[in-house]
Amino acid sequence: MARIVQKFGGTSVGDVERIGHVARRVKREVDAGNEVAVVVSAMTGVTNQLVERVREAARLHDAREYDAVVATGEQVAAGLLALALQAIGVSARSFLGWQVPILTDDAHGRARIQSIDPTLLLQRMADGQVPVIAGFQGIGPDRRITTLGRGGSDTTAVAIAAAVAAERCDIYTDVDGVYTCDPRIVTKARKLARITYEEMLELASQGARVLHTRSVEMAMNHRVRVQVLSSFDDSPGTLVVDEDEIMEQRTVSGIAYSRDEAKVTLTHVADRPGVAAAIFGPLADASINVDMIVQNVSADGETTDLTFTVTRADLDKTMQLLQARQAELGYRALLPDPKVVKISVIGIGMRSHAGVALTMFRTLAERGINIQVISTSEIKVSVLIAEEYTELALRVLHTAYGLDVT
Amino acid sequence: MARIVQKFGGTSVGDVERIGHVARRVKREVDAGNEVAVVVSAMTGVTNQLVERVREAARLHDAREYDAVVATGEQVAAGLLALALQAIGVSARSFLGWQVPILTDDAHGRARIQSIDPTLLLQRMADGQVPVIAGFQGIGPDRRITTLGRGGSDTTAVAIAAAVAAERCDIYTDVDGVYTCDPRIVTKARKLARITYEEMLELASQGARVLHTRSVEMAMNHRVRVQVLSSFDDSPGTLVVDEDEIMEQRTVSGIAYSRDEAKVTLTHVADRPGVAAAIFGPLADASINVDMIVQNVSADGETTDLTFTVTRADLDKTMQLLQARQAELGYRALLPDPKVVKISVIGIGMRSHAGVALTMFRTLAERGINIQVISTSEIKVSVLIAEEYTELALRVLHTAYGLDVT
Repeated sequence: MARIVQKFGGTSVGDVERIGHVARRVKREVDAGNEVAVVVSAMTGVTNQLVERVREAARLHDAREYDAVVATGEQVAAGLLALALQAIGVSARSFLGWQVPILTDDAHGRARIQSIDPTLLLQRMADGQVPVIAGFQGIGPDRRITTLGRGGSDTTAVAIAAAVAAERCDIYTDVDGVYTCDPRIVTKARKLARITYEEMLELASQGARVLHTRSVEMAMNHRVRVQVLSSFDDSPGTLVVDEDEIMEQRTVSGIAYSRDEAKVTLTHVADRPGVAAAIFGPLADASINVDMIVQNVSADGETTDLTFTVTRADLDKTMQLLQARQAELGYRALLPDPKVVKISVIGIGMRSHAGVALTMFRTLAERGINIQVISTSEIKVSVLIAEEYTELALRVLHTAYGLDVT
Repeated sequence: MARIVQKFGGTSVGDVERIGHVARRVKREVDAGNEVAVVVSAMTGVTNQLVERVREAARLHDAREYDAVVATGEQVAAGLLALALQAIGVSARSFLGWQVPILTDDAHGRARIQSIDPTLLLQRMADGQVPVIAGFQGIGPDRRITTLGRGGSDTTAVAIAAAVAAERCDIYTDVDGVYTCDPRIVTKARKLARITYEEMLELASQGARVLHTRSVEMAMNHRVRVQVLSSFDDSPGTLVVDEDEIMEQRTVSGIAYSRDEAKVTLTHVADRPGVAAAIFGPLADASINVDMIVQNVSADGETTDLTFTVTRADLDKTMQLLQARQAELGYRALLPDPKVVKISVIGIGMRSHAGVALTMFRTLAERGINIQVISTSEIKVSVLIAEEYTELALRVLHTAYGLDVT
């Protein structure tokens, strides 16, 4: 017997028929003798409809009212799933954030979970009942409903799993696990049976859309074993676990890519202290997130070229801000390039294996792919290349690191 | 300065545009220097949609989950109205039943309000803020969401008005007040400026659909002055008040009618003790509500004819139950008649004026309208007649009691 938290996303509970399907999947775990708690998202499309109504009601909206309205999506889904479970003979009841309670800070619309009292949930599970918890929501210090923002329901599920000391948190989604690379591009991509928190975090940050970074961070901090699997078929998923649960470390576990990148280059910037702050200060003030940054070695000893990346959505605003400051910054040219992609090779084994970056550079060079920017971390190497090479680069790297299905 | 509770029904908050209209109406009361609390129903159609989803999820549903799902309709409306108020510069915040809190019993789906703590609401109003309270819902002893059943939002409004000692509870609806008779039938019907609780209660019970009896009962018990008025125009409405607030009592205040009646006659029933119990016991067990009952004087001293009315929806079931018991009950014929209407003349002045019933009988007789059953209370005379005479009877009675607009 184990204690398990199951989380079902919006497409899994898209209509009443699918909710019935989810109920049968929950029943299977219960019939296997497990204690089960369930976390649900709102039915697909419902949250967007509610957000739209809020926008219609008031252009500048009060985040507390936004939360009161938007949280109803998960409330409805939780009630319906509890009913569907009862209909097939599984004892169940819904819990709203304030009923658990899930206490958050007061940052309405993007609240962070501060604590969860597991008492009620544990009692219910011990009595053989399945608590069905509305995801994405909690209660703030002002006793008003809060929502957790993007990735909220996954975060709720992992937090609940931590609070009730669950053996596993199963995240049911519309993909059946974590792959070595996007299988739509790399047909030889393999599903990973296991992956470490650190790798999953890098994959999520670098563009893989399976889990939100926030829920992975929480899982890592509380050592919650997370399984990603499909709600539509029965194949085994991917287990996200601690490093010591993986016997044989791979050097490279996966390759991620992000097309949501734009490159900006400033030429002939004065090579003196304070110039970076003068460039990036205004961007930070405008909430523009700068990712990769490279400053070339100055040839003349007086000026330097500076290249950095932002998201494509922020490119126009970035250009405007820097153009307005040309006199102050004293650069010669300001060159935007939205046609770039960031490719990241990720693997915890890199820490003990040299040559991972070299393999990457050599493999891309052999195909004539020019590397524009490089950045590295302990378990990741990322390069920026021209977008047109995306598919080619992913496939040759996948082969070069021995990840192909044989 | 006064303290006022305003309640807006589903059609008044039918879409975001109408919610904006409601917000401006609330603002008007605020600008006049009043302390205002608002109660809202769900947007038209939303509750039915939610009920439908519950039915799809489980045929036999858990009323607690039903409540958790259905209560979201009012939650959304309260949030949106709070936003719309803020958008036009009125300080406002939404309150859900559990946030006020509105404590109810545990009869989920048809809960009764047990107490309301007015502290938070009074604080907010004293600070110049408008609390926007989700109608129709509360929190039960098990700390789960309850809903109040039919007429729930009106009941919430009156209960809030009682709790905060409001000077008036304004119920905005799609009619502009209480009329002496249905103006769609009696074109000379007059809008009443004032009516007593007792009369309103009889009118509501006898088929007038302006207010639900339950909210009128609560208003009467707590002496809450209720005003019924239209959310779509600015004409003055009808004030429902205590008897001593009406200077000049009318003998008859209004004439109501109900087509939702069916008559059943059993002929030659044995005229002995216990026969009524044998007939009405099985109907009560089947939750069939019997309204008017007449037992004719026995001609032969041994048998009697018995006539009673039920709602039309219950007629078939009533017939089945009685047919199955013919041997036991020993009646000769069982005669159904769904083509009847109940007409009720209501007025608090009846208590001190004789001849009201006589006027009714004489007026109907002059038009050749046969009275099938009669029932009376202290302030009401009801008769059952053939349905085809409905319009004629209403018009001639309206004239006979001097109610016509002159």
